[in-house]
Formats: sequence, C-alpha cells, structure tokens
Amino acid sequence: MAGWVKIVGLGPGDEALVTPDVSAALDAATDVVGYIPYVRRVAERPGLTLHASDNRVELDRAGLALDLAAKGRRVVVVSSGDPGVFAMAAAVFEALEDRPERQAFDIEVMPGITAMLAAAARIGAPLGHDFAAINLSDNLKPWEVVVHRLRHAARGGFAMAFYNPRSKSRPHQFGEALEVLREELPGEVPIFFARAVSTDEEQIRTATLAEATPEMADMRTVVIVGTAATRAVGPFHYTPRSVS
Amino acid sequence: MAGWVKIVGLGPGDEALVTPDVSAALDAATDVVGYIPYVRRVAERPGLTLHASDNRVELDRAGLALDLAAKGRRVVVVSSGDPGVFAMAAAVFEALEDRPERQAFDIEVMPGITAMLAAAARIGAPLGHDFAAINLSDNLKPWEVVVHRLRHAARGGFAMAFYNPRSKSRPHQFGEALEVLREELPGEVPIFFARAVSTDEEQIRTATLAEATPEMADMRTVVIVGTAATRAVGPFHYTPRSVS
Repeated sequence: MAGWVKIVGLGPGDEALVTPDVSAALDAATDVVGYIPYVRRVAERPGLTLHASDNRVELDRAGLALDLAAKGRRVVVVSSGDPGVFAMAAAVFEALEDRPERQAFDIEVMPGITAMLAAAARIGAPLGHDFAAINLSDNLKPWEVVVHRLRHAARGGFAMAFYNPRSKSRPHQFGEALEVLREELPGEVPIFFARAVSTDEEQIRTATLAEATPEMADMRTVVIVGTAATRAVGPFHYTPRSVS
Repeated sequence: MAGWVKIVGLGPGDEALVTPDVSAALDAATDVVGYIPYVRRVAERPGLTLHASDNRVELDRAGLALDLAAKGRRVVVVSSGDPGVFAMAAAVFEALEDRPERQAFDIEVMPGITAMLAAAARIGAPLGHDFAAINLSDNLKPWEVVVHRLRHAARGGFAMAFYNPRSKSRPHQFGEALEVLREELPGEVPIFFARAVSTDEEQIRTATLAEATPEMADMRTVVIVGTAATRAVGPFHYTPRSVS
C-alpha cells in the first residue's frame, strides 16, 4: 500500500482562498472523492479520476477513499471550507475504525478557510472575541442537544456561527433556534446571514435577533450571531476584544 | 484618500498555508504593519516599508495603519492565523471608531488558516463536532469571564480550542483553567497541546484531562480539549459527527 489519502479543504468558493498546500495535493492526486458540487471545483486532467457522490453518503465516500488508497491510489477527499469543521475528516476517521489495517494508511488532513471565517471577514470582525461553532442540523444528533448547546453558548456570552442552519427536509429548525436565542439574548443582538461567501452569488444580510426570520437562511448560508457587545463602525460590525 | 488597509491572516507559519489572496495583497502593498515575528515572515523588497512593533500595542498599530492609508499608502496589517480570531481585525475596527472619516476608509479583511484548525488537522478531527474557541488571556477581560465561559462550554458538550493559554506574566491561569475543566468534565477527556504548528518546531502532545499539567502549554501553544466522545483511531484522534 503506497497510496495515500489527503483530506483537504477547498475554502468557501473563491480559488484565491485555496491554500498552495491543497493545490499541490490536487496536482499530485490520481483520484478526487467528494460531494458533487465540491468535486466540480476540481479541474479535469488526464490521469485524474473524479468520484462525485450525492450528499448524506459521507461514510460510503470515506470508505471509497480508503479502498482506493489501499490499492495504491493517491486520493484527495475534498470538502468545502475546512475538512475538520462539519465536513469529511471525521467521516474518514470513522470509516478507518472498521479497517484492521488502520495503522498502515497514509492519511493527512489539510486545513482550509472555513465558511464562518470567510463570512466574518466580509462582515468585519463579529467573531472578534470568544465564539462557538454549532451545526444546526439534527441529522446526526437529537434536536434537544442543539437546543442545549444554543442555551449554553448564549449564557456563556459567546458569539456564534451556525452551519447548516436550514434544509429543505427540516425547514423549521432554524426558526426554533431563533426562538431559543430570543429567550436567552437581548433582541438588539445583531445576526448576520452570509450566503455563498466569496462566490458570484455572495449575499450578506444583517438583522437584529428581534427582526430575524427563518427565511433569511438557506442551505448555503452560514449564520453569525453577535453578542450584546457587537457594534457597527462604518460599514462593518465587530465584537470588541475587551470585556469590562 | 486612495490608499487602503487589508487586514490579513498569514496562517500558522508554513508559507504553503498562506492563501493566494493574501500573497497578492502583500505583493501590492507599500507598507506592512504588525507584531515583530509576523512582519518578519514578509519578504523585504524595494518600495515596501515594514513597520514591526512589539506585542500589546495593537491599538497603536491599528492607528498607524489607518494613518498611512489616509496618506494614500497601501497597507497590509498582518496577523498570524486568521485576523478575525483573537488578532488584529477587531483592533483596527476599534481604532476606526475614533476617526470621523471612518466611512471613507477602504478596508478589507482577508481570512487565513487559524491555529486551532491547523492544529486540529494534525491531530485528526478533534473539532469534528460543535466547538468553542476561547482566548484564555485575561489581558482584556476579567478572569471570572474566562471561567464562566469554560463552564458553559464544558456543560454544553463543546470541544474547545484555547488561544493564549499561558504567558510569562500570568503563568497560573492555565492551571486554573485545568482545575475548572476537571470540575466539569471526566478525567479521561483528551487534551492536545499543539505548539508552533506547521513550523520546524512543531510539537503535538496528547494527555488526558486528569494527566494534563500547566507546563504542557506555553505562549506558542494552542490547546484543544476533546469531548467525552473523542476517541483514537490509528495515530489520530477524532470527535464523531454523531451524538446519540
């Protein structure tokens, strides 16, 4: 087995946000494995096989990557953003648990620009102090766990970033999350809806917690919730470094 | 005023983790402003003035960048990691508040690979589920706020990343943080000490919460605390995507 698996982050969309490290891995690959829209971002070339699969088959996809590496292929598993933030790295390690030869695999994780940090940069510095990143999807955890974490993040005074705030199959969960936040935080706290950051379709909207509606988010949106201290300066918003 | 300020993240140290976006900004700059070790990472060239300053003068540094831009200079403010995560972006917006001409400034924030994500990639996927990023320094916030946030992050079941865990001037704070965590979490929870990630001096150490000692961290370390679900597979550790 002289193959390898590199689990890489392609960043939020703009090619100028892909690290040279990740570009070099893609140049050296024989196979690219990932969710259809992310694999589409990789340029085709002779000698490179693209394996694009649908959403919600992360474990099958991870298993395919390990199978290919075991046959000596050089495999890049692509995620958008960073592979360790609600993306493919954990799925590959989960698939690795089922392999008796797990120590033999040559695996590397390569970080990328995750959506919340690209979104925060566009807004200003809304995550300028302590913050929590929460996956709002209840695909893999009970909704009560999401609510429990929202309350603790709010009570701890954390800014927050929400991934997967709203899906077609569960359109109500983000509305429920807003209700929980309204129970815990002042209505003036700003919320930022950053859609498709760094792409041609980028859209950033700002609302207060009191004004925010579930329709402001969709599957391609990362939501950032400020704190009671977050404030506007010029066209930007930031959360101050100091807590008095 | 045709100058600009770009607040950029240089990533954790390896030049292969600097985005092309940031490299292009550095190529276009007339001035680079930042903390000494970060400015040292920028190559000197004719037409580029380097303004390196000591730590703990973030606001002065931010003011200098705005002054230079107001004179028409093209200024890059450098942070390590990501500029929006416990770095220079919030300081520049704070300095901007004092400027009556604040709407006129051409300011852009460019994301970078933040230390916790570079560290997580080396470890496996310890932040593979919901997580909180906490600055342990009490330079700019009371220590009681740090303790309050540690308790809520632990009770919420978040993995955690600690920036600035320990400094020469306050060597005791990280020991106190460990005590707080021991009150809240099982002793088997793994803690990862990632020092100088992606540089020649990189060192990753793993301990359980019960075993961890304050000396395992220093100023150049980012500390990652897993959850009760975090587990080893082969040479890696990951926090599973699922919560049952």
